[in-house]
Amino acid sequence: MNSSDALDTLTLDAKARKVAVLGAGSWGTTFSKILADGGADVAVWARRPELAREITESNRNSDYLPGINLPERVTASASLPLVLEGAEQVFLSVPSQSLRANLEAVRELIPADAIVVSLMKGVEKGTGLRMSEVIEQVLGIDADRIAVVSGPNLALEIAKEQPTAAVVSSRSLENATLVAMTATNPYFRSFVNTDVIGTEFGGVLKNLIAVAIGIVDGVGYGENTKASIITRGLVEMTDFAVAYGARPETLSGLAGLGDLIATCESSLSRNNTAGRLLGQGYTFTDVVKQMNQTAEGLSSVGPVLELALAKGVEMPIVSQVAGVLAGTLNPRDIAPHLTTDPMPQGE
Amino acid sequence: MNSSDALDTLTLDAKARKVAVLGAGSWGTTFSKILADGGADVAVWARRPELAREITESNRNSDYLPGINLPERVTASASLPLVLEGAEQVFLSVPSQSLRANLEAVRELIPADAIVVSLMKGVEKGTGLRMSEVIEQVLGIDADRIAVVSGPNLALEIAKEQPTAAVVSSRSLENATLVAMTATNPYFRSFVNTDVIGTEFGGVLKNLIAVAIGIVDGVGYGENTKASIITRGLVEMTDFAVAYGARPETLSGLAGLGDLIATCESSLSRNNTAGRLLGQGYTFTDVVKQMNQTAEGLSSVGPVLELALAKGVEMPIVSQVAGVLAGTLNPRDIAPHLTTDPMPQGE
Repeated sequence: MNSSDALDTLTLDAKARKVAVLGAGSWGTTFSKILADGGADVAVWARRPELAREITESNRNSDYLPGINLPERVTASASLPLVLEGAEQVFLSVPSQSLRANLEAVRELIPADAIVVSLMKGVEKGTGLRMSEVIEQVLGIDADRIAVVSGPNLALEIAKEQPTAAVVSSRSLENATLVAMTATNPYFRSFVNTDVIGTEFGGVLKNLIAVAIGIVDGVGYGENTKASIITRGLVEMTDFAVAYGARPETLSGLAGLGDLIATCESSLSRNNTAGRLLGQGYTFTDVVKQMNQTAEGLSSVGPVLELALAKGVEMPIVSQVAGVLAGTLNPRDIAPHLTTDPMPQGE
Repeated sequence: MNSSDALDTLTLDAKARKVAVLGAGSWGTTFSKILADGGADVAVWARRPELAREITESNRNSDYLPGINLPERVTASASLPLVLEGAEQVFLSVPSQSLRANLEAVRELIPADAIVVSLMKGVEKGTGLRMSEVIEQVLGIDADRIAVVSGPNLALEIAKEQPTAAVVSSRSLENATLVAMTATNPYFRSFVNTDVIGTEFGGVLKNLIAVAIGIVDGVGYGENTKASIITRGLVEMTDFAVAYGARPETLSGLAGLGDLIATCESSLSRNNTAGRLLGQGYTFTDVVKQMNQTAEGLSSVGPVLELALAKGVEMPIVSQVAGVLAGTLNPRDIAPHLTTDPMPQGE
């Protein structure tokens, strides 16, 4: 009884804090709600003043989260100094390719000792750096002060308070725990680990498998084929990430498997949609034209296969996606294994 | 070039064999097709002579696999001696609770040195024995001669030749490999492992998580909640199976994760349906009445939680399913974590 009371007090104390969220898109706004519903005072930075006004005055972000009421504890501003002043934790949710420029603008504004938390998934084009690496490089802070959040993150479902689990990762377990306590509320539960590499690679690699799932969906295959591809795809993701320093259990967790399943089962995912069009027989060029938006998974196929080759990692499913993109493999022939390999192998 | 030719020859040699399948339900018949499409001559035992006749004469099993044409290499008979004569591998696909009685009837008929392969999932009521344990006990043969097949097994999708992967497990890697080569064809790929315990427990435990998924489906939660529950559910399945001697990687593979995803995403699964009714507010008694058939997952909840308790394994999701069944937990409150535990934990 006493020990449980002590825990409750610790949780409450830990949550009576001011935090900042940079970026008021669907995920940044949803995360602001998660944090506020966990007890924090949340200041959101929105690039456009009219969006900041809507969030603060109407408790709404009707462009990105239609129908969702935001908590009173969420306020927004287009002024970076105002938003960042006194923030103990700074959450970043800007487009991954503009992270570097955004960080350069806030470098002098982030309070000393604040924990900087990436909510983003992806690697920087050109450098191939993960988001936490870009943060470390641009801000020049100790890696212990950097954390990343990942997991199954379909923003609108979480904004509707559907129960979800996520993972907070930092080289410092103490800081990961602080962030996880701030990002926990009755519908959102954050677990912790110290494997930043695995946590970030999970969010990048799952897009490639989601394209494969989209392809078999487009062909008309059912749940059995998809379950086989997700399972064998997770093996490829794990082999790749482990070759680059990740721990395998991270990929089996929320940041790997959890995110992979949510992405593969969501018909709204861009990677899924791109794959589905390919499966229906459209060429790569058609798909890029039709979609207007980039599907991250499509542009990552080449770079990931190169990195895999460099470490001698086999990725039969990603290789088959590359074949479909190149027009050398019929989407109907995509399978949870390499058909050219006749011998049974260990799982 | 030479080494690949050698492999091809080995594969072909290994497949020129006679095998028997006992049981002509949807899974037994589908597996007969898998084996025949891999090159084996397959004799199927059907309890009812008219079904045996339909399979042999019309290449159909219209009750269980409507619309599917079976290969010519599949023949059926209601005579056990005829079916078992000369079989190098004997596949068992009878209802799990009648396995013991069926085995007693064929004990003297199974050729010496034949590999006996379970296609079944479940544990025997009363004894709690896994299917391979029942086989070992009743036939009194060496465990090396016993194998089990598991994985994502939605029979009708596989019968339609949708690409699927599975796992064959035996204490003897050589025998697992022989069976896997027989059970591999252009649309069905068998991998191998030697972890029979993990492979069999995966097929039992996934039903419990499928009930939880059904419940949140019935409540109206989306893909994000489901992905969180599948991911955390796999952790519970793994902890349980490892406590009883399984290897964790088996549960992350086709017999654990693969089967779990296929079951959770299939709206035809009985466990899913039972859960959905519970999520919509029907009581356990209502659900049992409405369904006419037993959902394996419902009756396993109690026994599995007892076994978990005996080894000190925590199963928060299965415990919450028990709460919903007992009427003490509102289905809306089911969550991928125990809400009574306020502290973030490692994944």
